[in-house]
Amino acid sequence: MTRYFLDISYKGTRYHGWQIQENAFTVQEALETALSTFFKKPISVMGSGRTDTGVHASMQVCHFDINYEVEKEKFIRSINGILPKDISVNSIRKVKADAHARFSAKSRSYVYRMVLQKNPFIEDFAWRHYFNPDMERMNTAAKLLMAHQDFECFSKVHTEVKHFRCEIKSAHWEQKDGELQFHITANRFLRGMVRAIVGTLVDIGLGKMNPEELNTIIESKNRKKAGKSAPACGLFLSHIAYSEDIYID
Amino acid sequence: MTRYFLDISYKGTRYHGWQIQENAFTVQEALETALSTFFKKPISVMGSGRTDTGVHASMQVCHFDINYEVEKEKFIRSINGILPKDISVNSIRKVKADAHARFSAKSRSYVYRMVLQKNPFIEDFAWRHYFNPDMERMNTAAKLLMAHQDFECFSKVHTEVKHFRCEIKSAHWEQKDGELQFHITANRFLRGMVRAIVGTLVDIGLGKMNPEELNTIIESKNRKKAGKSAPACGLFLSHIAYSEDIYID
Repeated sequence: MTRYFLDISYKGTRYHGWQIQENAFTVQEALETALSTFFKKPISVMGSGRTDTGVHASMQVCHFDINYEVEKEKFIRSINGILPKDISVNSIRKVKADAHARFSAKSRSYVYRMVLQKNPFIEDFAWRHYFNPDMERMNTAAKLLMAHQDFECFSKVHTEVKHFRCEIKSAHWEQKDGELQFHITANRFLRGMVRAIVGTLVDIGLGKMNPEELNTIIESKNRKKAGKSAPACGLFLSHIAYSEDIYID
Repeated sequence: MTRYFLDISYKGTRYHGWQIQENAFTVQEALETALSTFFKKPISVMGSGRTDTGVHASMQVCHFDINYEVEKEKFIRSINGILPKDISVNSIRKVKADAHARFSAKSRSYVYRMVLQKNPFIEDFAWRHYFNPDMERMNTAAKLLMAHQDFECFSKVHTEVKHFRCEIKSAHWEQKDGELQFHITANRFLRGMVRAIVGTLVDIGLGKMNPEELNTIIESKNRKKAGKSAPACGLFLSHIAYSEDIYID
């Protein structure tokens, strides 16, 4: 068997997230169906992690195994023809047999997009917000995130993780193309974590609390102390980092 | 009565075009409904021209009359709250009583967007094309358009216009942000004209005919001689030009 990594993108609007589940249409299911059609046998994929209902991915990575050599160009062209318009395969790379889309990932990055002006062309891709949060206050608070390890306060309550520790490597807001964008990278994320962080930082930006109160919220380990979750439509999984040595070609 | 011009944008995907019609949901209807809600009386609008089913507008202009002074900031905020997410009002300006969104327009501009790579995020906004047309050939042909006056060959067949004359002021292709974009400006356009021109120019770009054959097609006045219409999703009404002297403020 040969293991391959796929780099894919999707518009999450009409999907119930990444992960296969009964009675709901998911990105993983759409992808496995397309791969099984292409390879004429059942194919399962393992993603780097889940994304929730309505969340997008400009880069998601998954692996699958197949017992022959894939012709890359032909594969990319064909699979994109089989897949729906809102999912694309951007590249395929052969990896070592023990490389794992989830466990080999060194870090994940997300981008959250917010707009202050109504814009019909990005309605599916950004949180339209009516008030302008103060970037400096939000960035002061974002820097505080790096000093903490346990983020239970930003985790969905009924989740099956063993611990709530995450190593946040970077987190900052920037203004770009008329948008406010939040960029965050960590070794792992808890369910709902980025949207809860964004909602909390925006509250800070709007003056509902001081940047330093973020420390108190995090130390409380209580989801109710943090802000509301920002809407799913603004969130993009944007990068998954692996060591170069997992790739065979 | 005071006359106002509205500058609006819309994502045309779920609308049966601009113009009000029975048994179909249109942008004009959505806009008139919102305006009538805001002003608490029936309001009709007159657009600069129609757009077809699925066609977008980054700028469309329409006028309406009302018997009092509109508070602009409050109006813009409220009307955008009432309108659906895929239609926005960008600005409102008071104009002279005889200014007319359709008859005062000096020129209209359209942009047509084409992409060669599958991209889930612009699937609603561009024609995904599998072959790369030659830009130089397409631009050679686009220049020839300016030498003609009668464009019946690019007009939908059952249309009620009195004549097929258009004065094309500019028409060219450019590469931008990984897209092929066609920009065209004229005093007026016939129904289906831009999409028929794009389809024909792409055929020329792909070598199905020579740029000079465009002259023969135009002289034939026969829609069947021209290329297929490019899909609606790639087309944007992008600008309507008026003399500055129609505006009161």
